[in-house]
Amino acid sequence: MKIIQGNVTTPKGFQAAGVCCSIKSTNTKRRDIGMIYSGVPCTAAGIFTTNAVKAAPVLLCRENLADGKAQAVIVNSYVANTCTVDGPEIAQKMCELTGEAVGIAPEDVIVASTGVIGRSLPIGPVSKGIAMLKKMLSAEGGDDIAKAIMTTDTVDKQAAVTFELGGKPVHIGVIAKGSGMIDIQMGTMLSFTTTDAAISAPLLKEALSEAANETYNMVCVDGDMSTNDTLTIMANGLAGNPEIIEKNEDYECFVEALKAVYTVMARKIAADGEGATKLMEVEVCGAADVVSARKIAKSIVRSALVKTAMYGSDANWGRILCAIGYSGCTIDPKTIDVKFSSVAGEISVCENGGNVEVDEQFATEILKQEEVTVHVNLGLGNATATAYGCDLSYEYVRINGDYRS
Amino acid sequence: MKIIQGNVTTPKGFQAAGVCCSIKSTNTKRRDIGMIYSGVPCTAAGIFTTNAVKAAPVLLCRENLADGKAQAVIVNSYVANTCTVDGPEIAQKMCELTGEAVGIAPEDVIVASTGVIGRSLPIGPVSKGIAMLKKMLSAEGGDDIAKAIMTTDTVDKQAAVTFELGGKPVHIGVIAKGSGMIDIQMGTMLSFTTTDAAISAPLLKEALSEAANETYNMVCVDGDMSTNDTLTIMANGLAGNPEIIEKNEDYECFVEALKAVYTVMARKIAADGEGATKLMEVEVCGAADVVSARKIAKSIVRSALVKTAMYGSDANWGRILCAIGYSGCTIDPKTIDVKFSSVAGEISVCENGGNVEVDEQFATEILKQEEVTVHVNLGLGNATATAYGCDLSYEYVRINGDYRS
Repeated sequence: MKIIQGNVTTPKGFQAAGVCCSIKSTNTKRRDIGMIYSGVPCTAAGIFTTNAVKAAPVLLCRENLADGKAQAVIVNSYVANTCTVDGPEIAQKMCELTGEAVGIAPEDVIVASTGVIGRSLPIGPVSKGIAMLKKMLSAEGGDDIAKAIMTTDTVDKQAAVTFELGGKPVHIGVIAKGSGMIDIQMGTMLSFTTTDAAISAPLLKEALSEAANETYNMVCVDGDMSTNDTLTIMANGLAGNPEIIEKNEDYECFVEALKAVYTVMARKIAADGEGATKLMEVEVCGAADVVSARKIAKSIVRSALVKTAMYGSDANWGRILCAIGYSGCTIDPKTIDVKFSSVAGEISVCENGGNVEVDEQFATEILKQEEVTVHVNLGLGNATATAYGCDLSYEYVRINGDYRS
Repeated sequence: MKIIQGNVTTPKGFQAAGVCCSIKSTNTKRRDIGMIYSGVPCTAAGIFTTNAVKAAPVLLCRENLADGKAQAVIVNSYVANTCTVDGPEIAQKMCELTGEAVGIAPEDVIVASTGVIGRSLPIGPVSKGIAMLKKMLSAEGGDDIAKAIMTTDTVDKQAAVTFELGGKPVHIGVIAKGSGMIDIQMGTMLSFTTTDAAISAPLLKEALSEAANETYNMVCVDGDMSTNDTLTIMANGLAGNPEIIEKNEDYECFVEALKAVYTVMARKIAADGEGATKLMEVEVCGAADVVSARKIAKSIVRSALVKTAMYGSDANWGRILCAIGYSGCTIDPKTIDVKFSSVAGEISVCENGGNVEVDEQFATEILKQEEVTVHVNLGLGNATATAYGCDLSYEYVRINGDYRS
C-alpha cells in the first residue's frame, strides 16, 4: 500500500471538472462548482451530518444513495442551500441538470453544497455551471474540483492511495474541504472519494463507516457540527479485481487503504482549520476502553483553552487535565501522564496527575513547531485513540466575525 | 424585593477582608487572598464542579460542608492548588491557619483557590496573608475580597438583595469571579454568598441548587468546565426572621431573592467573559420541555461560530439554526423563528426555519450594542430557558495564549 499524489481522477474511469459560474455575483474567478463522473455505473455509499437541521442536498443525496448506486457528483461552494424555502427544489434541479448533461438518471447523482446557511442558491449560475462542467470533464480534472469546493480553506485537499487486490493495482482518490464548522460527532466535512475497486454496495458502506470513525470522525476545528456534512464514495470496479462481496482479506486490505488515505486527509483538514497556525494531534493511550479513549482525545482537542495555549506555545498542561476531567469518562487523576512532542523533541510535563520540573524554554521550543503531538497516558488499560485538531488563533476570530460578506 | 449595591458584608454580622500576600512573587500590589467571617455560626451549603479532576480545596471544602455548618471563607487567586502533590496538605493548612486566626474549628472553614493549574501554592505568603486578613476583617471589607478573587476579570463582581421575611428585613450578598474556563454543566465559577436569614441547612442546600440551576448553571464563556468551581452560601440568622424549616412561603421568597441576585451576577460574569465585547443572552421559548429549552439555549450560547458572528455584529442566523440542530434535542426545523434585539430595536431574521428579507444595516446596528438578546421560538410547546454568554474576540485568544506568564 502506498500513499501517492492524486485525487478523485486517479482511479481508472473517473473524470472531473471544476469551474467558476459566479454563484456569488462578485466572484468572477474562483471555481465554485464541480462535477465528478464515472463512465460506468458505480456502487456507492455516503455518511451525512447527524445535525437535526439538514441541508436540502443532504436530504436528497441520502435518498439518492439509498439504492447503493451513483455515477456522478455535483457540488457547489459559496451557498450551503440550507434553511431556505426553495432549497429542496434547487437541489433536485441540480441532480436533473447533471443527469441530463451526462446522460444518467437524476437519482444516480450525488449532490452537495457548502457555504452560507440561509441564503437562496441561485439556479441561473448553477445551471450555466453544469453545462460548462460537462464540457470540461477530464481525467485530469481532479485538481480543479478540489479547488471548486474550497470555502475558507487556504489550500486544496487531495490524496490518493494505491494497493493490490487479487494481483490487480487498485486506487482510491479523495478530495475534501474544511475548514470551519467541524466537529467530531458527525459524518464529516465535505469529502468525495472514488475508487476503481470492485466492491458490493453493502460492504462499501461498512468500509466507509469503519474508516471514517478513526479518521474524519476524529477531526475537530471548532466543535460546531455542520448542517451539510457529506462523505461519499463511488466504486466503479474498473481495476478488475474479484469483487469484494464478503469480509475477507481483500475487504480488510481495502479498509486499511481507505483509513490510510483518510488519515492523510484528516491531518490536512486539521492543519488547515480556520486560522490554524499548527496541527495538534492528541494521542491517548492507557485507556480502559476505546470509547473512553476517543471521548477523552476529543475532549482535549475541542477545548478552547487547550487550543489557545497551543497557539501561544504555552505548556499549560493543567488545561489538558481539566479537559480530561470533564470528558464524562471514569478516570483516575492520579495515574495520568502528559507529554508534548514535535520535531524539536519530547518533554514530560505531568506524571501521575501532578507537576514535574519542566524546562519551560524547551517546552516552548517543542510547541512552536507546525505539528505538535499531545501524548496522554491514562494508566488504566490498553485502549488508544488519536484526534486531529489545531490551535485557536486571532485569525479564527477574524474569519468568522464577518463570514457572510 | 430589591436589588441593591452591596456584597458579602451587606448582610448583618459578616466581616471580610482582601489583601496582597504576593502568592506570585512579582505581585506586590494586587489583592490575592481574601477572608469572610461571621461572628456567629452559620448553616451553610455548597455546589462544586463535576469535573473528575478536582482541585484539592474543592475536595476538602465539600468535606467541611458535609455537616451543613461553616463560619468563615478563605480563598486565594493566582494558583489553583490543583494537580499538585502537596495540594491536599496546603488546602488543609489554609483551613487550620484560618481557624486559629478567628478562633473556630478548621472544619468550619470554606476553602477555595483559583488560578494556574499544576503549580504548587506556596504556603509562606498564604500564611502571612491569613494573619493580615485577620487584622483587616471589617464590615466594609466585602469590596476588598471581591477584588482579591479576580483572575482575568476586568471588573469585580458583587451584588446584594434585600427583602422581608416575617416582617424582618433580610439581606443576601454575593461576590463572584469569572472569567474563563466557564461552562454550564457544572456548579459554577467561584462565588461566595452570605445572608442574615435564618434557614435550616437542608433547605439552604436546596435553595442554592434551585437558584443556581437557572442562573450560574446557564452561563457559558468558553465551554471549559473548571476543576475549581465552588459556589457556597452561609446563613447566620441575624435578621431575626422565623427560621425557615419547611418549604413555605418564606422559603419561596428566599429562593426568588437568591435567583434574582444570582441573575445579576450571571449577567455580570457573562458580560465580563474573557475578551468579551458584549453580553449575549439567549432566550428560548416554545420548547417541548424545560430540559430541551435549556439544552438548546446552551448549545447556541456555546457555539464558537455564533460567538464570532456576534463579535462581528453579523446577523448570521444560519449558525444559530445549526447549533439548535446539533443540540441533541428533537426539533422541527420548519417551526423555528429567530429574532435579535437590543436597545437599538428588534429584528426578525428567520421564520419557520427559513430566510426572510432582512435589513442587514439595521440588524448590524442591533448587534453592535453591548447587550444583545437572541430570541428563539421553537414552535413546539410552552417551555422556556435563558442562557448567558458573550462573544468570542481576538482578546480571548490573546488572554489565553499566554495565561501562565
